[in-house]
Amino acid sequence: MKVGFLSPRGTFTEQATRILADGNELIPYQNFLEELKAIEKGEIDEAVVPIENSIEGVVNATVDSLAFDVDLYIQELLIMPIEQCLIAKKGTEIKDIKKVLSHPHAIPQCKNFLNQNLPNVELETTPSTAGAIKMVSESELKIAGIGAKCAASLYGLEVLCENIQDTNNNFTEFVRISKNKNQTFDNGNIITICFSTLDEPGALLKLLDIFSIYDINMSKIFSRPMRNKPLEYIFFIDLEVKNNKEDILQAIKLLERKTAFCKNLGCYPILDKRLKK
Amino acid sequence: MKVGFLSPRGTFTEQATRILADGNELIPYQNFLEELKAIEKGEIDEAVVPIENSIEGVVNATVDSLAFDVDLYIQELLIMPIEQCLIAKKGTEIKDIKKVLSHPHAIPQCKNFLNQNLPNVELETTPSTAGAIKMVSESELKIAGIGAKCAASLYGLEVLCENIQDTNNNFTEFVRISKNKNQTFDNGNIITICFSTLDEPGALLKLLDIFSIYDINMSKIFSRPMRNKPLEYIFFIDLEVKNNKEDILQAIKLLERKTAFCKNLGCYPILDKRLKK
Repeated sequence: MKVGFLSPRGTFTEQATRILADGNELIPYQNFLEELKAIEKGEIDEAVVPIENSIEGVVNATVDSLAFDVDLYIQELLIMPIEQCLIAKKGTEIKDIKKVLSHPHAIPQCKNFLNQNLPNVELETTPSTAGAIKMVSESELKIAGIGAKCAASLYGLEVLCENIQDTNNNFTEFVRISKNKNQTFDNGNIITICFSTLDEPGALLKLLDIFSIYDINMSKIFSRPMRNKPLEYIFFIDLEVKNNKEDILQAIKLLERKTAFCKNLGCYPILDKRLKK
Repeated sequence: MKVGFLSPRGTFTEQATRILADGNELIPYQNFLEELKAIEKGEIDEAVVPIENSIEGVVNATVDSLAFDVDLYIQELLIMPIEQCLIAKKGTEIKDIKKVLSHPHAIPQCKNFLNQNLPNVELETTPSTAGAIKMVSESELKIAGIGAKCAASLYGLEVLCENIQDTNNNFTEFVRISKNKNQTFDNGNIITICFSTLDEPGALLKLLDIFSIYDINMSKIFSRPMRNKPLEYIFFIDLEVKNNKEDILQAIKLLERKTAFCKNLGCYPILDKRLKK
């Protein structure tokens, strides 16, 4: 199978793709929509894209495209902790490091580690963590970068320390998507649905009541602007699938009846890599 | 009065600030949180910040800061259409223009105008519309920029054509904020409240029912990650204020009783500049 992911290489997105599509051929894409359209064209079988980060929130480009641009479905969701690594050329020792490079978000995430182990080094920001590690590989100086583990192997460098981030609150959810509709709800724990509401008082509440009546738990809800309709919104909800397939089918039928736009984005299992820590 | 806004100058944010704080002294800030903190410190009286765009959605930095970083309140909301202008040095004629500069989002917004009036010009992207107009002012060549009207006067340039965007679907909501709590609900059409929910089935629905019971219309709802609490969310809702002040007060009291975190971000009027078009 061929699985797409967003370049550059050596990022947490590549790391997630290696977890979700282990053993498959990975194809990098420069552009996010091009990557998704490649599935529709049959160039690739699946793609892995980020959908939410625990600090930054929902990845708008992903959810908007799944709602409006493509007919693709979520097959699996990975919750991946953002584990930062200190990476340098082979043989480098921590005491020799004079400068540390990384993305402006990654450096403050590792403040405690840097204060304790590299209190006097120069800190320099780069446009991406992968870019930082690439610069380390090209430099003649005693410098290190902070980034994803997979960037070290990509550039033939060494991981000096793993998990150097201050807290474990930072993780990203990635989804593996394909053309497969999987409407039998057999393999999943979660269903994601997006829908529009009528512009009238209590419209959203009436729709959410459907799930309440069927005792279906909604584990997430968020809104995004309706494309080309200013001040109108669509809602994305995640429903928990337990021994309630028949109820969920009925509830979705009711939802479809009461909405102008309603799209089932798939029923899928969750792979939670936080549990292993 | 002193009113803060986010630099650089010559952007749609400056234009919005000139509408919302006409006649006051405008103070540019490089950093968004610094701007808000300046109100708390008393350096400025008010600040204007973008809170939502009709295409891009909610401005996360703004809503997160209002929820978690500062004790400031919304005084007024401006809905401002993003009206792109073709700007060049005085005396330039459209037929002489060889190149057009602008932000990567602004150029496709004006595709029809460019195809009809400047079919063969070179198009070049810049990091911001204000940056494009600045480059036009510094260039010796026959070039034009696409950007906000206020950028033309800032750099002593001429607006060759106004409202050159293809559709009027693109507008941004800006809020004027200050320390003033305004809890009497006298001047407002809208109240914005943010709150957390308990992590149990139907928790959100139970809270929204409060407003339904009091016949209070909710015109907007969106969620953001709770800071430092992975996979927990806070919700922001907008409530319509009509002749129902007492009901709203009672509903908010009930909401506060049933939530661990609940913050009233202000009751404020809406200035809708789209109506004038």
